[in-house]
Amino acid sequence: MVNIGLIGAGRIAHVHANTIAANPNAQLVAIADPYQPAAQELGGRFGATVLSDAQDLFALDNLDAVVICSPTPQHPQHIIAAAKAGLPALCEKPIALDYEAAKQLEKDLEGLNPTIMLGFNRRFDPSFAAIKALVDRGEIGQVEQVTITSRDPEAPSPQYVATSGGIFKDMTIHDFDMARFFLGDIVEVFAYGQNFDPEIKKANDFDATMILLRNANGVVATIINSRHCAPGYDQRLEVFGADGVLNADNVRATTVELSTSNFSASKEPYLNFFLERYAQAYSNELNTFLDAIAHGQTPTPNVTDGIKALQIAEAAQESALTGTSITLS
Amino acid sequence: MVNIGLIGAGRIAHVHANTIAANPNAQLVAIADPYQPAAQELGGRFGATVLSDAQDLFALDNLDAVVICSPTPQHPQHIIAAAKAGLPALCEKPIALDYEAAKQLEKDLEGLNPTIMLGFNRRFDPSFAAIKALVDRGEIGQVEQVTITSRDPEAPSPQYVATSGGIFKDMTIHDFDMARFFLGDIVEVFAYGQNFDPEIKKANDFDATMILLRNANGVVATIINSRHCAPGYDQRLEVFGADGVLNADNVRATTVELSTSNFSASKEPYLNFFLERYAQAYSNELNTFLDAIAHGQTPTPNVTDGIKALQIAEAAQESALTGTSITLS
Amino acid sequence: MVNIGLIGAGRIAHVHANTIAANPNAQLVAIADPYQPAAQELGGRFGATVLSDAQDLFALDNLDAVVICSPTPQHPQHIIAAAKAGLPALCEKPIALDYEAAKQLEKDLEGLNPTIMLGFNRRFDPSFAAIKALVDRGEIGQVEQVTITSRDPEAPSPQYVATSGGIFKDMTIHDFDMARFFLGDIVEVFAYGQNFDPEIKKANDFDATMILLRNANGVVATIINSRHCAPGYDQRLEVFGADGVLNADNVRATTVELSTSNFSASKEPYLNFFLERYAQAYSNELNTFLDAIAHGQTPTPNVTDGIKALQIAEAAQESALTGTSITLS
Amino acid sequence: MVNIGLIGAGRIAHVHANTIAANPNAQLVAIADPYQPAAQELGGRFGATVLSDAQDLFALDNLDAVVICSPTPQHPQHIIAAAKAGLPALCEKPIALDYEAAKQLEKDLEGLNPTIMLGFNRRFDPSFAAIKALVDRGEIGQVEQVTITSRDPEAPSPQYVATSGGIFKDMTIHDFDMARFFLGDIVEVFAYGQNFDPEIKKANDFDATMILLRNANGVVATIINSRHCAPGYDQRLEVFGADGVLNADNVRATTVELSTSNFSASKEPYLNFFLERYAQAYSNELNTFLDAIAHGQTPTPNVTDGIKALQIAEAAQESALTGTSITLS
Repeated sequence: MVNIGLIGAGRIAHVHANTIAANPNAQLVAIADPYQPAAQELGGRFGATVLSDAQDLFALDNLDAVVICSPTPQHPQHIIAAAKAGLPALCEKPIALDYEAAKQLEKDLEGLNPTIMLGFNRRFDPSFAAIKALVDRGEIGQVEQVTITSRDPEAPSPQYVATSGGIFKDMTIHDFDMARFFLGDIVEVFAYGQNFDPEIKKANDFDATMILLRNANGVVATIINSRHCAPGYDQRLEVFGADGVLNADNVRATTVELSTSNFSASKEPYLNFFLERYAQAYSNELNTFLDAIAHGQTPTPNVTDGIKALQIAEAAQESALTGTSITLS
Repeated sequence: MVNIGLIGAGRIAHVHANTIAANPNAQLVAIADPYQPAAQELGGRFGATVLSDAQDLFALDNLDAVVICSPTPQHPQHIIAAAKAGLPALCEKPIALDYEAAKQLEKDLEGLNPTIMLGFNRRFDPSFAAIKALVDRGEIGQVEQVTITSRDPEAPSPQYVATSGGIFKDMTIHDFDMARFFLGDIVEVFAYGQNFDPEIKKANDFDATMILLRNANGVVATIINSRHCAPGYDQRLEVFGADGVLNADNVRATTVELSTSNFSASKEPYLNFFLERYAQAYSNELNTFLDAIAHGQTPTPNVTDGIKALQIAEAAQESALTGTSITLS
Repeated sequence: MVNIGLIGAGRIAHVHANTIAANPNAQLVAIADPYQPAAQELGGRFGATVLSDAQDLFALDNLDAVVICSPTPQHPQHIIAAAKAGLPALCEKPIALDYEAAKQLEKDLEGLNPTIMLGFNRRFDPSFAAIKALVDRGEIGQVEQVTITSRDPEAPSPQYVATSGGIFKDMTIHDFDMARFFLGDIVEVFAYGQNFDPEIKKANDFDATMILLRNANGVVATIINSRHCAPGYDQRLEVFGADGVLNADNVRATTVELSTSNFSASKEPYLNFFLERYAQAYSNELNTFLDAIAHGQTPTPNVTDGIKALQIAEAAQESALTGTSITLS
Repeated sequence: MVNIGLIGAGRIAHVHANTIAANPNAQLVAIADPYQPAAQELGGRFGATVLSDAQDLFALDNLDAVVICSPTPQHPQHIIAAAKAGLPALCEKPIALDYEAAKQLEKDLEGLNPTIMLGFNRRFDPSFAAIKALVDRGEIGQVEQVTITSRDPEAPSPQYVATSGGIFKDMTIHDFDMARFFLGDIVEVFAYGQNFDPEIKKANDFDATMILLRNANGVVATIINSRHCAPGYDQRLEVFGADGVLNADNVRATTVELSTSNFSASKEPYLNFFLERYAQAYSNELNTFLDAIAHGQTPTPNVTDGIKALQIAEAAQESALTGTSITLS
């Protein structure tokens, strides 16, 4: 049984708390959040020790690992604290507020030899993971083109947008990691930012984006993002290879199809939202983290994956603002 | 170029006239129907000689074959006339008004060695024919269960029902032939007749039926029929075998799917009605007929297939009326 | 928290034990099975008191409810024991070895006013339950025809078959209940038993069956059963109504589709077997049971549903053996 | 009956000849191609006058219209000749060898008031046209993102590639027109050219490309092209709007699905190649052309559409070669 401490008590912390509670090999023993009502509500539900300061959590002697769900600017300090405490950490994305901070984190971690996993949960989605496995087995030959469609069901609140870091770091970062899952390192990115939502435009952010990314071998991925999608949380993937194509469709709660005189085989909207859509992915992600701990291995995705996704996000932002293609060093 | 004479100028005669006109190897040269307005309209459209009496048509010296679309009671006399004239004939279903008349026809044809094909067009539907070919190639092993779903989009008029011969001979007969396509000879049949439509009940007919048929090896088929279906002309097939399953879905005019906030991947209704749905089947049927003529072969389905489907139809009718299972001799 | 005692430690008992363990409102506190190794293994896993005799379990003072997974012949005695102990019971299907025993049970329960739920889990499958809700809301108008396809992935062992009570009571009973879910009481049944598997034939049982059932209003259901199915556990439903059609397709672990030069959009086999396919149904079933306990209500499906499904099973067996349609009293 | 003269006797000329032959309102009366064996073969099949020089064809007095399938460099001169002869013309894409030649053509046509239609056949595909109609009816609200996937089944011969004008003018030009179908005028384009096929690289061309296009309102389209695709001719469209999404899937010859122990619901490869896939589109295109002639209207797509697609193609080529985004004047 792995005893886990949770840093943060917000929306994504709830996801991890539930995932830990449902896992037979882990238990939530402590939770720290300066906003005590949230910490007490969440901690109380699972019988965990409730703290205000994350530093106190790292000082506990009954922890085996931590899950970091603090605000993004605090990710690096919590990662370093975990590393110094010798605690394996699963940290939510993005790894830091910006690329500069992420590179500084990388330097600060030198010599600490930590076990850190980045929370790019979509790699663990059963369908996307199955596609990766089929690609690795050579079922479609050399990968040539990747199409990632990722649309949220509804725009977040202006408050959320204002502190989100922008669509590329907040939302597309998952898709950048997915692109890297299949293309490896990206050498060039071109992005169009789109503004259909006046509220988001007012917050100086884009509400949609379409992006091209290229690796050194000329393999290209396109990412299609929107902050809204009428039929729900739109999460699809197509990997095109020399010998075949793999597709993952959206997920629905049932297989029911309705046919009337106006239409046929109509399905229900997509699973909505990430909690439902990626419930299995979060569970598999946690198991991978626990496995890595059990076997003393470095889990994937790791700090480097977190840094590189962030680098792409900043390049995409620059591309969208300048209208030029950005080469990654 | 095969010169074809058409007997009848009703709805199904229009289908055949159009199919012949579109075939590069056949042309419609004559048409006979006692109802002259219909005959003139159809014949005029294709530049065919227009006659009133079918006997005059058989006397023409420029015919290579005939297509028989007369009212069902006249099918046997027209088949015999064609056989005596040495003209290959494609005859619409059912082959005769009843099993007794069909057996008499069989006797009357002895020694005439005719080339007669029965118009069970669905054997030539690209999807159903592909399933048959895959079954014959052994792709799913020994066939064990067959499910035939066949629903018309809307109930025919009371006038049509009154002279139709009843649902089993008029509508289900196609499905009986489809069952024989995969099961061969049927030895037993059990049918429930259903009455949801008061008009059809008033005409002493059923508007829906669900049927089980068994062959001598214990392979069973179920037929699901209705005179109406909200999303259109519902024509599906499932063949279940020892090593796999084959399915044919309904056909639509486009592949368009609409997703909104209420539903996702909604398709258009099915192709409506048999003219559109089975356009390719009628074309392939005609080509099979023309091929048989060209090579002096006996086409399939033939007179025996027509008689056996009619025998099953009468047994199903008896089963539905008596509530007992009927064994076929 | 509802404390649950489990009677039996076989395959289906494992399903219920896991479902109880995953439910935040229930816990497994005791398990009884004369075969102690199985009881100890299962009980040990969940920290439950392990007993040999079910009578000892009913004598425990910390139980709130029982789940009955004993061999079928013992179902009635365990139901009665639960009723006498005032314990709500969820009993696996079939309710008894035969209709006579079930009617006797009904009589024995008179005056005990028990809370008994029958384990027809498929009513709680998200897709089938959604179809029922849509039908009840009138989305497709009056139900006219129901098609239930239900095939196991692989034939059970000869040992299992020998004591199973036959395909109708062991396997089809789920489908009889599903038919009743949509048609209500059945008045007539006709069944073909099929024998493709020599081992099962040797055990005097059928390995496949196709069945028609009719209610008093003329609504008909067809059930298509087989003990094997190459692509997996085949569980589908079609409900056809006056104004539309509802379908539920098979369930797969992912949405991945593979396309190569030989085929396109190929999906993985179906979820295999009932544990995976109906995991959510078992969970929902348990919640319904817990809700009924919490609110002092009679859960559905109940003893009467169990008895009526058994009655249909015996009628189907008789029909298959005699070749006649059986009317239910 | 519209009498049509055909200029050219190559692959696409065969498509048009067959389409004309199947149309009840048109007939092929003359064909001109300097390569006489091809002209005689095609003309002979349809009983058309066979000429060598297109100028002789324009001099015929029994023509009502022409279809121009000459080599691309000759398109402008044949369009002008048709305009001067007062003959409506349907011209294959691209409209000219390069943008400069196309603009010169536009100038040369001033005052001639010709009836010229460009052969962007995909606008007439039943699925793509249905999506356009649904968009125009407001079914999905304001269009925001368009995804065009277009892959040929197999790379053309090196000989074809050498004289094709490059992937953008030869293949993607259809997709540029499709983008314009939904976005109107394009103001900016960014393209990655890809090289996986050594033969095509040797011919100084790309064998795949991924492209982003933007209109003045910020609506973006992505085009995904490849010269090969294992499961066949991959032609899909997604139009995403404020209130919904519309998708068109690939087309197959049958609806058959095969399920075995290894996979389920496997479909056949896509229709292969453009002749089969777009047979209905070519037929509808011809009908639109004939309708425009009959009603003295200017058909769409027209010369301007041809010029603008070519302009985008050249910009995409420049973008792919320079790595920069190209703004269209």
